[in-house]
Amino acid sequence: MAESWSFLDTWELDFRPLVVIELAKGTKGETIEWFTKRIVDKKANGGAQLLVKPLVTENGDENIYLVGASPLRLLLGAETVGLVKECNDNSMRTFTYSSRRTFKDFADDNHNFLTMAECQYIIKHELENLRAKDERMIPGYPQAKLYPGKSIVRRLLTSGILVQIFPLHDREELKKLRHSWYGRVKVGYQPLDEIRCYFGETIALYFGFLEYFTFALIPMAVIGIPYYVFAWEDYDKYVMFATFNLLWSTVILEVWKRICAIMTYRWGTLLMKRQFEEPRPGFHGVLGINPVTGREEPVYSSIKRQIRIYLVSLPFVCLCLYFSLYVMMIYFDLEQWALDYHEENESNFSSMMLFVPSIIYAVVIEIMNRIYRYAAEFLTSWENHRLESSYQNHLILKVLVFNFLNCFASLFYIAFVLFDMKLLRQSLATLLITSQILNQFAESLLPYWLQKRHKKRMKKRMCSLKTDTDLSLVEQINLEREMGTYFGTFDDYLELFLQFGYVSLFSCVYPLAAVFAVLNNITEIYSDALKMCRVYKRPFAEPTANIGVWQLAFETMSVISVVTNCILIGMSPQVNALFPDSKMDLILTVALVEHLLLAIKFIMAFVIPDKPRDIQIKLAKLEFESLEALKQQVRATDTQNREK
Amino acid sequence: MAESWSFLDTWELDFRPLVVIELAKGTKGETIEWFTKRIVDKKANGGAQLLVKPLVTENGDENIYLVGASPLRLLLGAETVGLVKECNDNSMRTFTYSSRRTFKDFADDNHNFLTMAECQYIIKHELENLRAKDERMIPGYPQAKLYPGKSIVRRLLTSGILVQIFPLHDREELKKLRHSWYGRVKVGYQPLDEIRCYFGETIALYFGFLEYFTFALIPMAVIGIPYYVFAWEDYDKYVMFATFNLLWSTVILEVWKRICAIMTYRWGTLLMKRQFEEPRPGFHGVLGINPVTGREEPVYSSIKRQIRIYLVSLPFVCLCLYFSLYVMMIYFDLEQWALDYHEENESNFSSMMLFVPSIIYAVVIEIMNRIYRYAAEFLTSWENHRLESSYQNHLILKVLVFNFLNCFASLFYIAFVLFDMKLLRQSLATLLITSQILNQFAESLLPYWLQKRHKKRMKKRMCSLKTDTDLSLVEQINLEREMGTYFGTFDDYLELFLQFGYVSLFSCVYPLAAVFAVLNNITEIYSDALKMCRVYKRPFAEPTANIGVWQLAFETMSVISVVTNCILIGMSPQVNALFPDSKMDLILTVALVEHLLLAIKFIMAFVIPDKPRDIQIKLAKLEFESLEALKQQVRATDTQNREK
Repeated sequence: MAESWSFLDTWELDFRPLVVIELAKGTKGETIEWFTKRIVDKKANGGAQLLVKPLVTENGDENIYLVGASPLRLLLGAETVGLVKECNDNSMRTFTYSSRRTFKDFADDNHNFLTMAECQYIIKHELENLRAKDERMIPGYPQAKLYPGKSIVRRLLTSGILVQIFPLHDREELKKLRHSWYGRVKVGYQPLDEIRCYFGETIALYFGFLEYFTFALIPMAVIGIPYYVFAWEDYDKYVMFATFNLLWSTVILEVWKRICAIMTYRWGTLLMKRQFEEPRPGFHGVLGINPVTGREEPVYSSIKRQIRIYLVSLPFVCLCLYFSLYVMMIYFDLEQWALDYHEENESNFSSMMLFVPSIIYAVVIEIMNRIYRYAAEFLTSWENHRLESSYQNHLILKVLVFNFLNCFASLFYIAFVLFDMKLLRQSLATLLITSQILNQFAESLLPYWLQKRHKKRMKKRMCSLKTDTDLSLVEQINLEREMGTYFGTFDDYLELFLQFGYVSLFSCVYPLAAVFAVLNNITEIYSDALKMCRVYKRPFAEPTANIGVWQLAFETMSVISVVTNCILIGMSPQVNALFPDSKMDLILTVALVEHLLLAIKFIMAFVIPDKPRDIQIKLAKLEFESLEALKQQVRATDTQNREK
Repeated sequence: MAESWSFLDTWELDFRPLVVIELAKGTKGETIEWFTKRIVDKKANGGAQLLVKPLVTENGDENIYLVGASPLRLLLGAETVGLVKECNDNSMRTFTYSSRRTFKDFADDNHNFLTMAECQYIIKHELENLRAKDERMIPGYPQAKLYPGKSIVRRLLTSGILVQIFPLHDREELKKLRHSWYGRVKVGYQPLDEIRCYFGETIALYFGFLEYFTFALIPMAVIGIPYYVFAWEDYDKYVMFATFNLLWSTVILEVWKRICAIMTYRWGTLLMKRQFEEPRPGFHGVLGINPVTGREEPVYSSIKRQIRIYLVSLPFVCLCLYFSLYVMMIYFDLEQWALDYHEENESNFSSMMLFVPSIIYAVVIEIMNRIYRYAAEFLTSWENHRLESSYQNHLILKVLVFNFLNCFASLFYIAFVLFDMKLLRQSLATLLITSQILNQFAESLLPYWLQKRHKKRMKKRMCSLKTDTDLSLVEQINLEREMGTYFGTFDDYLELFLQFGYVSLFSCVYPLAAVFAVLNNITEIYSDALKMCRVYKRPFAEPTANIGVWQLAFETMSVISVVTNCILIGMSPQVNALFPDSKMDLILTVALVEHLLLAIKFIMAFVIPDKPRDIQIKLAKLEFESLEALKQQVRATDTQNREK
């Protein structure tokens, strides 16, 4: 067995640090010893069989550890996590160690066969799957209970002994990536494959979606510009614009599924088997038997969770919605006040003042969104969902409903209660532009500036010390562990979702929205890229095959926008002029058009295949091969049985 | 290998005929010899390793063959087709021969472990998978070309050498089934599990759906009766009825998915892996390379097919739709004529005459539906779809669109163009009742009567002969092979679909429709049961996990019915009276209610889980086990690799 591996003696030579483990200061020696022993221990003994090296820092603290693994260990790990790679015959297949030579670019001495992000993902997976055997608690910390099968790392994290685990940046690679991503001024696509190699599929897919969405908005923007330039105020032109918008938004969402399938097929994640989902770190409960796995683990009654959801979370969300509407009414009072002021003293200043309530309201909306976000996270976490996916779904639902109402309620009110199209256009513009500016600032530029200041201070301190350790590595790790943590693509998608709402819900009164969205998204690409490369710790790569629940959210938004646009068009004076005799005919016509558009939408969504034909054929081919292999196996068993 | 099996010497003793093969009269001897040899030949030689026995009929013709198999062969076949059976621990698992002893009711001498329907399905699967090796043609018939991998049975069928293959009835079992199904007058459920054992899952699922649907209609019928009894003509009561109907129809369709999951889990088909789909028998093309399998087989260009679909089928369907509308206009002329006649000479006869146009129209609709069905089958077959599923989808789409328009266009016209609620109610009643009577007659009673007459004639002829063969078997086979073939559940589902339309589309003007639907369905259960047991040849069992595209069709119908019912309610005088001042408010309210109802529908469909919790847990458990098994396997490979 592993005794025959020689790397255990020579690992100091080719040790490449991949992942950093930061323990709390003053962690007991026995705990560290037990934990590092488990990490390096053989698989057969329940270890992870990885490599660990303490990092000696300037003050001699031993609380930071570097984790790496031998190339062979990584290849075996790639098989365990079920990575899908390209073969020599250009097909995508699940990697197995025994068939390694059939894979493209594989060579025993090619240590770049697995990307660094994949290696770090494998190490994370192996660390998280370090499970308690017969330990009842973490050595040295009797209050940190364990039970057989519990993930050690998760318990260490929840009990605060483990501060963080994060993957290291590769400075050379990062420099190259930065250069090709945003280092030079160029027109063109982002290097999505390189982003995927460095940051993993989830983040690459977000940037892919952002780019695709921006390109998809360009036709809307191009059609929208003449409305501003020539000051077209004819509603019949708006009708054309809105109709185009509605069909276009359906098409782009359907086409995105196909583009997503092409990308994730190339990256291998479309074929990756779903791993069995373990309980999320924060989940707690009394020990019981899990009916699915038959293992002893904490269980939490579903009824208790339902009670928490329906008797606490739901009322709380409703209260927040009510509060948001209340704030909206205050905004309308302010708006009225500004209008009165403007009428009393007509001046440049007073006409500037007209925009102030909208700007204040936009800032308040952003602040409320952010505060609500924390409340939603706290509540969803308190609901104690067993699975990360169920936690995410409940969180997204809560946040989406609130943000939708918070951002759009005032617009709905202006459009369908006040019937004030001029105010609607003004509000829409102010809200959209203010929120874009705030977001760009709060998300990227502020952290970047903070980060830069911190870095300078660190560098000064570093240079004043004289140690003989690898200064640049120590320096790098010290820098990176202080960086902020990137909490996933949630906020980025949410921003795009709200932007899509501003663009599509009332597109027929403000065609210029698409222009602002395109401009914002172009800078968003750069500022998000900056954020990923410079501001935050490197995140662990997460394989993913699609944008998940966001697809549904965008589709729902486009259905709602059909309804709102049809009503807006029906309310326009030009369309009203077409039906001088009877309001009834007008409304019936609008309702008919709306139903037709919705029907066309659903038929289009049904008719356009989710995957392009060549991907379908490739997937069918793989399925056929696995069925054939199964048949061969059955046939072999047949023969064996007959021989008995 | 197979030499050690002893059954080849003794099979005459325990040969149980399961499937009948009827060859064309005068089939050449060399063909018969080659075909039967392939059937009995060993698997290793490309045979099916089944048992074959010629049936000697009265006139000495040797064109009928009985096929059976040894119990061991059937068990191995059950593994090949991937049957899922219940284990001793009450879980459902894919049957494998090596784990046979862990399955419930398995014993080496228990030949009832597999139901007869399963055995016949296995034999059919094995026969259809008899594939040409190096034959270029069927021996004796040079024009019947073969190529490696082509299914021999399919080629024999398309070249007319093989007349039919059908499974034998088990007279004992059938008698028992008939007794418990419809033999005695009783109130209660159908013996669905017994039906499934005898006829397979597809048919059992149809009867399950029919029964469920009937039960689900009862609340609607019960609420509908007082409208007739007390002659409630208040529209506000109709509003309540319609609202209940709309929500109820959503609930029943969602709940059906859950019930279906429970049933098919118990039957094992929910877990059965989909087999790779082979080209359908009628598919033809030039020999080429299939990109999925890499095998040489006929290919047909997708563009040619698209041209046929869009340039021939689509215009033809449109023409048929136009013709159907033309017929409808003739019906309205007739209706007008009858009304004029009634007004001129008021008499009992003339008031009877009022119903005549509707009845004639209902009969014409039925006839047109049937003729169109043949045209649609011909066209879809001419479109040359490669897969049976794609053929079925195109056929169903064609038939559904036409039948929907043909049956409901006149009702839509009366309701939304003529605004004649009285005529709508009368038309609806006549169409519904006439079509139900016609269907019952044409589907079951007529074939039953024909069958009975034929049987009597056969019996007479049989008794006049004196042969020493097993008379009852010969007699049974001769009877059964003359019976009609059951072409699947398509027509039965279509009938239910149209009935659902009659009940739900205009439910608020004719609440009694549900009562007629319930009465019809109760007799439908009996007449369909009669049809299955007495009129048609036994069909091969087909494993299936759900009612497929019909679920979508019913859901679409229930969405359309929300729209129609909202409009009808909006048009009612009582609701109009609520808005005396402005028609506009009325229409806006109706539109708002409609959108709310649709939103509630979609949310309900989203919120109600498709599978009950315990089935979800059972499925998750199986998935967990298979992932664990995979991990074990990977671990074993790890160890092997390390040992190298």
